[in-house]
Amino acid sequence: MLSQRPAARTHPQLSNAGLKATVAAIAVDECGQSCAGFIAAERPLTVYLDKREVVTLMTMGCEPELLVLGWLRNQNLLTELAQLQAIQVDWDTDAVAITTTTGVDGLDEKLARKTVTTGCGQGTVFGNLMANVERLRLPRVELPQSVIYALLKRLSAHNEVYKQAGGVHGCALCAGDDILAFVEDVGRHNAVDALAGYMWLHDIDGGDKIFYTTGRLTSEMVIKVAQMGIPVLVSRSGITQMGLAIAQQVGVILIARAKGRHFRVYHGAEQIEFDAVPGLSEPKC
Amino acid sequence: MLSQRPAARTHPQLSNAGLKATVAAIAVDECGQSCAGFIAAERPLTVYLDKREVVTLMTMGCEPELLVLGWLRNQNLLTELAQLQAIQVDWDTDAVAITTTTGVDGLDEKLARKTVTTGCGQGTVFGNLMANVERLRLPRVELPQSVIYALLKRLSAHNEVYKQAGGVHGCALCAGDDILAFVEDVGRHNAVDALAGYMWLHDIDGGDKIFYTTGRLTSEMVIKVAQMGIPVLVSRSGITQMGLAIAQQVGVILIARAKGRHFRVYHGAEQIEFDAVPGLSEPKC
Repeated sequence: MLSQRPAARTHPQLSNAGLKATVAAIAVDECGQSCAGFIAAERPLTVYLDKREVVTLMTMGCEPELLVLGWLRNQNLLTELAQLQAIQVDWDTDAVAITTTTGVDGLDEKLARKTVTTGCGQGTVFGNLMANVERLRLPRVELPQSVIYALLKRLSAHNEVYKQAGGVHGCALCAGDDILAFVEDVGRHNAVDALAGYMWLHDIDGGDKIFYTTGRLTSEMVIKVAQMGIPVLVSRSGITQMGLAIAQQVGVILIARAKGRHFRVYHGAEQIEFDAVPGLSEPKC
Repeated sequence: MLSQRPAARTHPQLSNAGLKATVAAIAVDECGQSCAGFIAAERPLTVYLDKREVVTLMTMGCEPELLVLGWLRNQNLLTELAQLQAIQVDWDTDAVAITTTTGVDGLDEKLARKTVTTGCGQGTVFGNLMANVERLRLPRVELPQSVIYALLKRLSAHNEVYKQAGGVHGCALCAGDDILAFVEDVGRHNAVDALAGYMWLHDIDGGDKIFYTTGRLTSEMVIKVAQMGIPVLVSRSGITQMGLAIAQQVGVILIARAKGRHFRVYHGAEQIEFDAVPGLSEPKC
């Protein structure tokens, strides 16, 4: 699923338990005929942190180690990679064992705070994240329209699972039109977390990167990407009021409905260099 | 947003603080031109249960009382409507005060268990829900294809916010092709919770109903709808492996990719009466 794996700066032991993204399934169509096809895989993965159960993530299971790594980071449960000794995924028990070298300071308190912030579109880590947003400021970058188009063209070759099975969201970490990593999962938050894990593991700075997602840009998506230090956010889908408000606050270029030659810049339009405006012969906006 | 409001069997005091679903926003398109439009509203709503903060939900805010009601029910925090005295939403503080007549038994323990189950596609209430799935069995119903088509036709008039602003999911509670209630929200779980609240408030039995959603049918969606006692689940989008497995276990008719004349039955095809197979002149599957 990931196209590049630069050398890691530190080396927690990670299992390599990625699964196939789809499973075969037979449906009956509107003509009453059987049709064979594929649907997105989905499994529970229960996270044990130093032998303590902390959460069950529902995942496609393609990049379980990166997912768990990014989840730990995005939940602020671990702040230093050096604290981490191993992440071992075992699909026989649908569990992942995380071993730290140091234990987690204030784990009880951190887990207690999570009770206030459950759910997707239901405030995942909302309280903690909003506190962080106040101090976030992203670098101001310039983005040529030609790069947006080149990137969208390359991305169309990805989204494999979506095309095959539907029911998933894809996210990509990009440098210009170069796709460094592409992750799909049944939840868009999982895909973002896996990319955060990838960046953390490989010590990748977000300041000159672009984040692409097939999913909607709600507040939580914008906050997470801002926390990853990435100043450009491109979505094939729409945005929400609060996603926009947070992008304005932290200074993220926010581009929605990006598909083919179309896009809409909701924030940061003055940082776009319109060097590839579609010709008059092309369909107008 | 809701098309019918049958008389409630009991009367907790509910505020009436529903907000407009969209806000105006200006974007710059690929031609560098400003275009005015709408985006989905999104607000935090922090839930106080007998003055104790329990969660922050991110919502469009159209049906906040029903959302909170369904959330309480789906999280098993309240089991009897009679326990509930009032739900008062106050957008000045983005908060909702829930007052019970009895207090909530074992609230600490219930909230503690939530720490194991945060997130969307990240196991919201996963542990609790899976325990319940074991004992769920839905009534076996027959469903004519003509009803599916009549319903899809009626539903196309809804999805107002989606059409106007994107970035939302819609869910409908239907009796045959009659749409009893339609809710849109920035998260599909919110929309399901709001319909659960509606059914609970109005003492509506799910056994002869159809549940429609624009969203993907992941495990959590199928579990929630099964818990609402609804034996038919129709989605415009795709399904996942575990959504299918749970539908098979509890006996839900599972129809995905339902749009126009197309659909795919992933479970319960033998309960569909194919009385409206598209003619040979229509596009084949």
